[in-house]
Order: sequence, then C-alpha cells, then structure tokens
Amino acid sequence: MVKKELRIQELKNARGGKGTLIMKHILEQDELAGHGRLYAEAIFNPGVTLGYHQHVGDFEPYYVIEGEGIFIDAEGNRIPIKAGDLCNINPGEFHGVENTGDGVLRMIALILYEEKK
Amino acid sequence: MVKKELRIQELKNARGGKGTLIMKHILEQDELAGHGRLYAEAIFNPGVTLGYHQHVGDFEPYYVIEGEGIFIDAEGNRIPIKAGDLCNINPGEFHGVENTGDGVLRMIALILYEEKK
Repeated sequence: MVKKELRIQELKNARGGKGTLIMKHILEQDELAGHGRLYAEAIFNPGVTLGYHQHVGDFEPYYVIEGEGIFIDAEGNRIPIKAGDLCNINPGEFHGVENTGDGVLRMIALILYEEKK
Repeated sequence: MVKKELRIQELKNARGGKGTLIMKHILEQDELAGHGRLYAEAIFNPGVTLGYHQHVGDFEPYYVIEGEGIFIDAEGNRIPIKAGDLCNINPGEFHGVENTGDGVLRMIALILYEEKK
C-alpha cells in the first residue's frame, strides 16, 4: 500500500526552540507495533531550532537527508552536521538541533523504546 | 554522538533485481535493540531494481526521500512513487521497487519485527 498524504504537524517553538518545526509523520505511534513512539521527517527551515531536551526510556537515531545544521550533543558540544550524518541519542541523553544555514535541513527522526511496550 | 561514516553495502541483483543497489546502514541490526533487522538508506541509480520478494514476521515502512520510481505492491500493482510517499509492506506481503527514471531514487528502509526478539 502506498500512502501519498502523510500527516503534517507544525510545532511552534519545539522543545523551547525557535520558529516552526514541520513534522511529516511516516508512521503514527499506533502503527509502530509497540516498538517506539515516533517515525517522522523533520523539516527545519532556515533559523528553526529544536530546543535542548532529554530522552528517557527511549533512543533516537536522527538521520540527516538534506542540508546542513548544528547538532548539540549530550555534553553540549555543537557539532556541524550535513546530509548522510547520523546523530545518535542514547537513553537518558539530551540533544538539540539548529538550522543555522540558508537552506532547508531535513532529518529522519525515529524514536524506539528501550523495552517493547 | 554523531557518526559521519556509515557502512555502505553494494548489493548486486538485490532479491533478483537489476544492477547494484547501494545501502547505507543507518543502524546495524545489533543497534536496533531487538526491534528490527534493518534501518538503511537505499540508493537506486537509474535502471536499478529491487526484485519482488516476501516479508515474513516483519513489516517495512519504505519512505521515498528523493526521486521517482515504481513500487510493486502485494497484488502486483505497479504504482508510481515520488519523494514524500510511503510504501507500507505488511507481514506476509510481497513487494518490489524499480527506478525507471533518469535520476537517483533514494528511500529510507526500516524493517521492524512483528514481535520484539
């Protein structure tokens, strides 16, 4: 089955960040069969940021598919990221993302539980 | 933690398909914490196809991030796909993919188990 219209969510000041983060939901939580809570494409227009926040009880591989930005890791390091890079957030860790460039930054966000629910 | 070098796998005639399918492994199977067996970016250069094959015991949301192609669904329907479309493969279903265009086709493949292992 091919789904042509994904649910689009506009998150203003996501986790205390700047601007409006656009999320296209690839799978909804109830479609993840208890494995996780989010599978979405995150679209950061120029200037948009995702505030620094903690993950508890889950982990999140965050994969850059287009553009450039800054990933703020668990130690607060500001790391330049670009298409093809993987940001790994382990359970208990904090992270944030910023689009500091002129183009769009697109990432695939997958959040899986430490334990299946 | 940011990982800048993902493992690249070249699959010749993947599942009986044509050409060489390139897989960039976002997470390895042992990094999926028992939830699944594959999380990768699949890169189809022009003419490359993934042969028609069945999924047993797992499901696969297959998300197009760039380009155009053809998805062959469980009933054998040939459905045009493009960036932003989601191809859903349920347990027990067959599917195939073809890049019939002039540009690259990039998809994100996630395979999760019906039951956590």
